[in-house]
Amino acid sequence: MKILITGAGGMIGRKLVERLVADKNLGGKPITGLTLVDVVESPVPTGAPKDTKPIVTDFSEKGVAETLIAERPDVIFHLAAIVSGDAEANFEMGYKINFNGSWALLEAVRIEGQKSPYKPRFVFASTLAVFGPPFPDSIPDDFAPTPSTSYGTQKAMTELMLADYSRKGFVDGVGVRLPTICIRPGKPNKAASSFFSGILREPLAGQEAPLPVGDEVRHWFASPRAAVGFFLTAATIDTSPLGTQRSMTMPGVSATVGEQIAALKKAAGDKAVALIKRVDDPFVAKIVQGWAGRYDAKLAGKMGFKAEKNFDEIIKVYQEDEMNQ
Amino acid sequence: MKILITGAGGMIGRKLVERLVADKNLGGKPITGLTLVDVVESPVPTGAPKDTKPIVTDFSEKGVAETLIAERPDVIFHLAAIVSGDAEANFEMGYKINFNGSWALLEAVRIEGQKSPYKPRFVFASTLAVFGPPFPDSIPDDFAPTPSTSYGTQKAMTELMLADYSRKGFVDGVGVRLPTICIRPGKPNKAASSFFSGILREPLAGQEAPLPVGDEVRHWFASPRAAVGFFLTAATIDTSPLGTQRSMTMPGVSATVGEQIAALKKAAGDKAVALIKRVDDPFVAKIVQGWAGRYDAKLAGKMGFKAEKNFDEIIKVYQEDEMNQ
Repeated sequence: MKILITGAGGMIGRKLVERLVADKNLGGKPITGLTLVDVVESPVPTGAPKDTKPIVTDFSEKGVAETLIAERPDVIFHLAAIVSGDAEANFEMGYKINFNGSWALLEAVRIEGQKSPYKPRFVFASTLAVFGPPFPDSIPDDFAPTPSTSYGTQKAMTELMLADYSRKGFVDGVGVRLPTICIRPGKPNKAASSFFSGILREPLAGQEAPLPVGDEVRHWFASPRAAVGFFLTAATIDTSPLGTQRSMTMPGVSATVGEQIAALKKAAGDKAVALIKRVDDPFVAKIVQGWAGRYDAKLAGKMGFKAEKNFDEIIKVYQEDEMNQ
Repeated sequence: MKILITGAGGMIGRKLVERLVADKNLGGKPITGLTLVDVVESPVPTGAPKDTKPIVTDFSEKGVAETLIAERPDVIFHLAAIVSGDAEANFEMGYKINFNGSWALLEAVRIEGQKSPYKPRFVFASTLAVFGPPFPDSIPDDFAPTPSTSYGTQKAMTELMLADYSRKGFVDGVGVRLPTICIRPGKPNKAASSFFSGILREPLAGQEAPLPVGDEVRHWFASPRAAVGFFLTAATIDTSPLGTQRSMTMPGVSATVGEQIAALKKAAGDKAVALIKRVDDPFVAKIVQGWAGRYDAKLAGKMGFKAEKNFDEIIKVYQEDEMNQ
């Protein structure tokens, strides 16, 4: 089986590739080749199948999608996107990459299928940013997406298109709305959500971390390992029960900042907690207010998607996967 | 005030133009010109403002949107589309006209606004076909669109884009999800919904009409006059309370076929009812099963959109507007 991954050089993309190489197969079928697409060089893990190639390209540029799809991958993991802040600052580029780029991939699949039958599994990395306030206490599967960013709009539009292309039989699509990934390895970044990982990651490494919001702020989380699991599940489930609802909110852990800190205390003691420095940031606080804290991910649960059960597990995953504990 | 209308030659488009010409103003501002766009010649009613021109063109063709927007209309009524059945049969054309064409208009507005400030009211004719089954008993405003046709998908995508362009301040958009229009004047057509008008219109004219479904089938209706009212309301409301929810389900009358027939009996007696011929059509019955019968159009009600209160009123509107009674 041949697999195409866009955004293969990103944090989740790299972990997904590592997992596929370690597993050697997907849904019981041996993996014969991986095409790893990103605007940066995607690392190729040791032991990758012979027919593995990193390609440095912008998938949204004219003709690139057709070239990638001409190899008829059996599974496409479409993770590439520009992030929320970039899409908000660069309106045209956001639509070009996040929407038109995704459409170009779907169109390339449809047109390839006109030559001879071809209907790959198309796993699309979507986002909970398809939803916008006002939120109910817990967001059900049938809650209408009214995004409050261009990024969320572009992802919601792609979800609709993925469902329509699937309904018409051109692809077999599954959209995966990722929770906030925590604990992200590496350094703090400029995302407003960066502190959710920072207040755990830095103290676990004996370093200080700023906390810009109050303890009561609630959010929806899953580990990087769970995210990789979501993509593997999406690639292998029987999609026939999905009907026209092809994109699903992923399960996760609903936790407040206070609950995050309590889990950190359990894992690393008061000394770690003392490294969290409260630095009010009304700008970040305001953005975070526009995010929901709880989802009722019934459909994804029924389809077999699994996240951690609590924040203790999320910290444990980080200690195992990133700190070799 | 200058007004641009796409789809000005269609049934609702013509009635909207007639109403604007009769009113002479919109929201208290005198109408100085009407640009009437359609692929067929749009009729120009007597008494139209001097600066009125019908243009026969396909708005979705390259460059057309820019030309139309270069005149900086204050209000744009975007009604043009290919219908559900055509969009389902002609996949590429559906996306080209219903989605890309709408996007081209929005883009033309955005780019025109880069030359000097320009933010027209953009009224978009959307559809309840953005929703797909399974349906709750009554569909609330926050119910997620999962369309079961390409037409519904294209309209739902345009709704998302309209909201994003409005949020960014490029246009001032309002999307109007029309109920099934009843009683449509004219002849039966090939739409699966044609009989909803036919079983009233034909008997009112002393002619037979086939009824392909059972009395229990429930649907959501408004008159052509109410539809014109929706567009005028959409063009003149204060949009500031709308936030990121720019498209709204319009109010309507929820009625079963049995209730339609009871209203016909009240209006025209048993003789008219006897002209309805029951001819089971499993193909039509199956399509109609995928439609919802009741909506809770709270937001539109709050914003001042008004439909008829019952089917007696809907029949009366037809008698007044189409039969000169």
